[in-house]
Amino acid sequence: MKLNNLNDLLIHELQDIYSAENQITKALPKMIKAASSDKLKQAFEQHLQETEQQIQRLESVFELVGEKAKGEKCKAMEGIIKEAESMMSEKADQSVMDAALIACAQRVEHYEIAAYGTVSTYAKQLGLKDVMKQLVQTLEEEKKTDALLTKIAEQTVNKQAE
Amino acid sequence: MKLNNLNDLLIHELQDIYSAENQITKALPKMIKAASSDKLKQAFEQHLQETEQQIQRLESVFELVGEKAKGEKCKAMEGIIKEAESMMSEKADQSVMDAALIACAQRVEHYEIAAYGTVSTYAKQLGLKDVMKQLVQTLEEEKKTDALLTKIAEQTVNKQAE
Repeated sequence: MKLNNLNDLLIHELQDIYSAENQITKALPKMIKAASSDKLKQAFEQHLQETEQQIQRLESVFELVGEKAKGEKCKAMEGIIKEAESMMSEKADQSVMDAALIACAQRVEHYEIAAYGTVSTYAKQLGLKDVMKQLVQTLEEEKKTDALLTKIAEQTVNKQAE
Repeated sequence: MKLNNLNDLLIHELQDIYSAENQITKALPKMIKAASSDKLKQAFEQHLQETEQQIQRLESVFELVGEKAKGEKCKAMEGIIKEAESMMSEKADQSVMDAALIACAQRVEHYEIAAYGTVSTYAKQLGLKDVMKQLVQTLEEEKKTDALLTKIAEQTVNKQAE
């Protein structure tokens, strides 16, 4: 299918993000298991719940734009998660593994910040106010999660790993 | 090799970034070729030059930490670039392709923002001031590139793609 206009591209990008979010829900339980710090485990668990809500939000966005919620396999998230799995298979001290898990999770967050940033500017340009509102809500959540991970890294995990 | 402490993890992460940057220098010429907007082509060309400088900067960081500059294949960047290549193979109107290229490039930038953000906090924790200074310099460049791409998208490309 040819991408004729920004609306076609918006749908294409939403499908990519939908796949990415679904991949994240499968990766996070492994990261929770691999984490030692209680604060970090808790942050990951909270983000897993949030991700499930974000998927529902995406489904309502698909409804608003009149398309079926389906994901075109997001190759980028596949790669980011492969890297996280490879990291989890490394031998490492507990606190060093925690620091490494945060590094992986922040790459995931930044992928989402880029992706939701993109689609929310498309929705704005297309005058799709309700769509934009929902996408911006998720974008803000991703930024908050990223900031929380930085805080956990700087205040506890990196110090313990040193 | 076991990751015993934050210094081991710093080296591991630097190797990942070194591979990512080298992959980017191979992907950018294809993106320059695929772009139609002069402003966008120019931004990509400028970023290619900048990336080459950032690689040199990384090599001097490896020297400072007493390690050889070498890259452990960054699987995440491999995935992000695969996605960009798959996008470039889509049929799309010129301005829609430009918008899509910006979307891909901002995912690359955000990967780098996450990665350089991570290693600069490690360098800070480890008291490696000179290392931190160089990593923060690149981090700021990546943020500027990301902001420039947002500007090009919002001011011209997305409007033309609508």
